Amino acid sequence: MKYSSKTLEKAVDALNSLPSIGKKSALRLALHLAANKGDKKQRIINAITSLSTDLKVCEVCNNYADTVICDICTDPSRNKNLICVVESVKDVLAIENTQQYSGVYHILGGVISPLEGLGPEELNIQELLDRVKSSTVIEEIIMAISPTIEGDTTIYYISKLLDDTIKISTIARGVSFGGDLEYADELTLGRSIHSRTNYNKELSI
Amino acid sequence: MKYSSKTLEKAVDALNSLPSIGKKSALRLALHLAANKGDKKQRIINAITSLSTDLKVCEVCNNYADTVICDICTDPSRNKNLICVVESVKDVLAIENTQQYSGVYHILGGVISPLEGLGPEELNIQELLDRVKSSTVIEEIIMAISPTIEGDTTIYYISKLLDDTIKISTIARGVSFGGDLEYADELTLGRSIHSRTNYNKELSI
Repeated sequence: MKYSSKTLEKAVDALNSLPSIGKKSALRLALHLAANKGDKKQRIINAITSLSTDLKVCEVCNNYADTVICDICTDPSRNKNLICVVESVKDVLAIENTQQYSGVYHILGGVISPLEGLGPEELNIQELLDRVKSSTVIEEIIMAISPTIEGDTTIYYISKLLDDTIKISTIARGVSFGGDLEYADELTLGRSIHSRTNYNKELSI
Repeated sequence: MKYSSKTLEKAVDALNSLPSIGKKSALRLALHLAANKGDKKQRIINAITSLSTDLKVCEVCNNYADTVICDICTDPSRNKNLICVVESVKDVLAIENTQQYSGVYHILGGVISPLEGLGPEELNIQELLDRVKSSTVIEEIIMAISPTIEGDTTIYYISKLLDDTIKISTIARGVSFGGDLEYADELTLGRSIHSRTNYNKELSI
């Protein structure tokens, strides 16, 4: 597409470099910003700038934070005996949204994936081991990792390095709520029969 | 959603204020920018800043430009006898993309819409009349305005104010290429029968 202005073209290209923003969306965003007479442009610039200047990574769990240690790790009401190991910040937000978990987190920053050049050294695995070793209260580690080959490899790798005294669990795998058995893949369905649980009257609707 | 950081939350809110960027997309964009170690954040900041500082509006046609008069208006190869009247910059880009038009443009900045508080004074209609009056070369004005009630009203309003010596045309309305007659609305189909054109062997595939 030929733009009438290099400035506009640069704005479209810059916005187009964001994930899931195509050329047409980028153009719409650039024209929207160009036409905005309020402070929207400045608000966005300030917000992106502070992602560089103000955003910190929690020294304990690697979650994004405003301080050296994040709100979850410093919250006295959170159960420090439980660590939920996740891949990314997005997973923490997803689990927090369920309001079903009161422990703390450890963000790996990905899963072991030789194809993508991600080995154990690139992930925060050593930090997890150090954290477990230096603590006397940790009782259980919940692996909330994607149910993929890479995810399973990562769980296995970490479990081999952890002390046997610590309980390791994975989040339940099975058919989704509202899902149709007919459309569940064989592996999921097979596993969910194998890992069947006792019926709990109180949890059912 | 409860974010672990106010900085992250502000970035999500700022990005969420853009059109067609929902909360989830805004979070994905913010996390992407936060994790980016290159110059992507700075590139986007610079691009948005120059939308304020460098982007100009062409004094002749109201298109976005880098100079006082845009590239299309200054291009000697463009046909100055033809003015294509459009609603917005997006329409200029769409028509330029077809590579079927070699005249110049005039951007109204919208259509007459009393419901949205847009009267003729809010649009660049007077500028169009002045432009036509002060020029001796303009022969035809093509109205490339959306085929809506508001669009038709705008075309009618402008046509009443223009000199009778100037030819006024509208872009052809009819069934879309690849469209199915069965699904065309009655008004479109009725109009396209009424405005039938002579078959042109050379234009057909």
